[in-house]
Amino acid sequence: MLSAIPSQAAPNQTAHVAMTDLVLPIDMKTSVPGPRSVEMLEQLRKIGSDAGGAVKFCCDFAQSKGNYLVDADGNRMLDLFGHISSIPIGYNHPAMEAAHKSDLMRHISLNRAALGMMPPVDWAEHVQEALMSIAPQDMHKVQTMACGSCANENAFKAAFIAYRAAQRAAEDRQALEFVQEEMSSCMMNEGPGAANDLVILSFEGSFHGRTIGALSATRSKAIHKLDVPALQWPTAPFPRLTYPLEENVAVNAVEEKRCLSKVQKTMEAQHAAGRPVAAVIVEPIQSEGGDFHATAAFFRGLQELCRQYSAAFIVDEVQTGMGASGHMWAFEHWGLESPPDFVTFSKKAQTAGYFYTDRFASNAPYRIFNTWMGDPAKVLLCGVVGSTIKDENLLETVRDAGNALMTAILEGQARYPKAISNVRGLGTLCSFDCTFGGAFRDSVVDELRNRGCIVGACGDTSVRFRPPLICTRAHIEQFSPVFHATLAELVPIHEKTH
Amino acid sequence: MLSAIPSQAAPNQTAHVAMTDLVLPIDMKTSVPGPRSVEMLEQLRKIGSDAGGAVKFCCDFAQSKGNYLVDADGNRMLDLFGHISSIPIGYNHPAMEAAHKSDLMRHISLNRAALGMMPPVDWAEHVQEALMSIAPQDMHKVQTMACGSCANENAFKAAFIAYRAAQRAAEDRQALEFVQEEMSSCMMNEGPGAANDLVILSFEGSFHGRTIGALSATRSKAIHKLDVPALQWPTAPFPRLTYPLEENVAVNAVEEKRCLSKVQKTMEAQHAAGRPVAAVIVEPIQSEGGDFHATAAFFRGLQELCRQYSAAFIVDEVQTGMGASGHMWAFEHWGLESPPDFVTFSKKAQTAGYFYTDRFASNAPYRIFNTWMGDPAKVLLCGVVGSTIKDENLLETVRDAGNALMTAILEGQARYPKAISNVRGLGTLCSFDCTFGGAFRDSVVDELRNRGCIVGACGDTSVRFRPPLICTRAHIEQFSPVFHATLAELVPIHEKTH
Repeated sequence: MLSAIPSQAAPNQTAHVAMTDLVLPIDMKTSVPGPRSVEMLEQLRKIGSDAGGAVKFCCDFAQSKGNYLVDADGNRMLDLFGHISSIPIGYNHPAMEAAHKSDLMRHISLNRAALGMMPPVDWAEHVQEALMSIAPQDMHKVQTMACGSCANENAFKAAFIAYRAAQRAAEDRQALEFVQEEMSSCMMNEGPGAANDLVILSFEGSFHGRTIGALSATRSKAIHKLDVPALQWPTAPFPRLTYPLEENVAVNAVEEKRCLSKVQKTMEAQHAAGRPVAAVIVEPIQSEGGDFHATAAFFRGLQELCRQYSAAFIVDEVQTGMGASGHMWAFEHWGLESPPDFVTFSKKAQTAGYFYTDRFASNAPYRIFNTWMGDPAKVLLCGVVGSTIKDENLLETVRDAGNALMTAILEGQARYPKAISNVRGLGTLCSFDCTFGGAFRDSVVDELRNRGCIVGACGDTSVRFRPPLICTRAHIEQFSPVFHATLAELVPIHEKTH
Repeated sequence: MLSAIPSQAAPNQTAHVAMTDLVLPIDMKTSVPGPRSVEMLEQLRKIGSDAGGAVKFCCDFAQSKGNYLVDADGNRMLDLFGHISSIPIGYNHPAMEAAHKSDLMRHISLNRAALGMMPPVDWAEHVQEALMSIAPQDMHKVQTMACGSCANENAFKAAFIAYRAAQRAAEDRQALEFVQEEMSSCMMNEGPGAANDLVILSFEGSFHGRTIGALSATRSKAIHKLDVPALQWPTAPFPRLTYPLEENVAVNAVEEKRCLSKVQKTMEAQHAAGRPVAAVIVEPIQSEGGDFHATAAFFRGLQELCRQYSAAFIVDEVQTGMGASGHMWAFEHWGLESPPDFVTFSKKAQTAGYFYTDRFASNAPYRIFNTWMGDPAKVLLCGVVGSTIKDENLLETVRDAGNALMTAILEGQARYPKAISNVRGLGTLCSFDCTFGGAFRDSVVDELRNRGCIVGACGDTSVRFRPPLICTRAHIEQFSPVFHATLAELVPIHEKTH
């Protein structure tokens, strides 16, 4: 089943093979980082571009293909993390290569437009093709941005602006009928002009980005937040489900009810304190924070609370969107009767931005605005991703690969029930907890990588999978023995010390 | 002198002409926006991608070349605004085209790396070539980011982290020796873990971006800030110089002293209130806010105050950097004895980011971090810009074109002394005020565009110029008669109503 292509085949000889069918041998020449990567990391450190030591190794993209990342030392690894979920359809997908070589891409890449003032010709068509073609049902508008943090920050701003417009309407004022006190106070960062009495509600364990506004909503880990100022915004607990789900329906229902009740109490208290919640932001799966899931009932209840308290309902699909859940957008699993108010995206979309409903349309120029407003070249790439998902039926591939991945992890759990717990997944957004703790988790991630499988860490003790959408059952079958061998090596060591 | 190339020449026939030597006739077929642009704007409005009405017209990049932008209706305009200062070396520069066609660019564009974890091979070399080669003197480190707002926000974060590290050092604690109260309070957005007692000082009239942290430092216009929450950060006045400078040396010295004195009082008051200033951020020219300049003495005094109060000195060169001042960085005009602590960049650099001094090096992973940490493809383009500036001696071109532009504007002022005032410039970063007010200013900008010259508005009554670096004296000579004809038409009308 493996090795459709001999390992010595040069990448260009494999161009005719569909990325889903490309199964190459894992080929490890060194541990990771190998000597060439180590040398490069030192050079990066010297010029302050090593992310404070976060850089792990360097990638040889010229040699990488499909589901396989080749590093600077020539190690070919099965990549189930995809640059923190940023590789949508595998390395060097032919459709992406073709798009890069087009005249359109060249003109758009080399002449960086101020999209909010002077976009390229046919820009509406490109946005339509790339983004509106994959828009969630009943969401008719989209705003592009450069990164996930900016997408969330601007969704916040749009929500604040709309909330204030509603407050003015209640005072028989137009949305843009600012009083002098608003005009002058905002310039001093003070209310009523600055909406310092409006807040964003986010969840414990959430991750929504790292600029100061986005970071104020982020509640993942202390190291992400320490020493940075934050806005006085409230938080509520996100469900911590008990697994397996089938055996814990009642207890999980109680847990979700507890969380929704806390949300309601918080919204009520904020309202009573004159600091109402302008928007609630939530991830379909809390990813960076530890891959925590909730049921459709929880999210439906949350949307209902937003409606009751006139708060915008922002679904942060930066990590979960673009097909990885088996639907184009993970929230489509929830069966909502009406769409969220905002759906933010980035990563696999290559461009960032947000879909939004009509009532949040900008009511004046230069409010939701910046010089670039995203990058049109990335919007074109997003179009390639979207059409490839459709053309290659990748949502079906994701569902199948996700099932295979869940089976592989559950087999690991069956063999090592003390080491592996809380196996969970939606599409290929799968994860498990390392019951022996963070040090064991880290050793699992490192050892898997040294054996040629790249996975990610999240939360305190979790391992997460974020493969590209072209990852198939065959790739998971390649992962499975590596996973079991890794556990066979590490579990006995940690069992002794645990 | 004009028309080195006949107007009917196709762009590809002009490829052998240096961008600086390419002088084409202005060729207007319609007013702007013409019918094709209007149609596209309506399509953009329907899908909510028209920036609330800020979009003015659409660009045909395939037909644009050098200093000339062709719009959707086939109007060829001399572009002296360059997409809000984002076009560095003209449209479709051959060096940019060559870079786009390289294998390296293709691999880097199609496989979007998480630069803080798994950068491409030779990434340190590329950063060295593209960014460290143009780094300000004595600044040895650089951090890439995706946009100017993110560059400023992360410089703020790095400044906060360093300030806290110094506070811990004063308590005999290591920078990363967090106490439990810090760890837990930051998760609630509260101090001491969240640095809510530290502030950024920025200037009245400044513009530093639009994410919530950046926007808290921005003090340009109410419409940029209204209805968005802001951090309780202080502000101080930025000099408002009197022109011409040669005749107002004494009065301007008094004005700058007044502003520095206010800065000092604010820093002292913040310190006394236990809310010290962790960083001061300043633009070399307040651009969006109205193109306000200050002298080298002011900035040297500001750096000295930062030193006295242990505040980081952040110079925001997002709009002024990359050669437009006639130096690579505008602050090089100040004759500082030591570099600023941070120099942020974006726009003409194509990538965003900041240079920083060694003492602000990240002290742990995942503090200054996000998934993409910029875009390596844009870093490669920045390298092309930097090498082209050197190879084509563009700093000299900028100085010469800047002199010509100042002369052209001053001639306009000499003819219409009641209409034009405060003519000012540094390199091609030139501007003037429209004494008859904002409506007159807007009509000047519109009429110039309809006559084939694109300029920008800023502040309440100012017109600013931000041409690409390949703009020459010959291009300015093309602008000059259009400018005079525009004034000849508009001034008499506004003189009557004024």
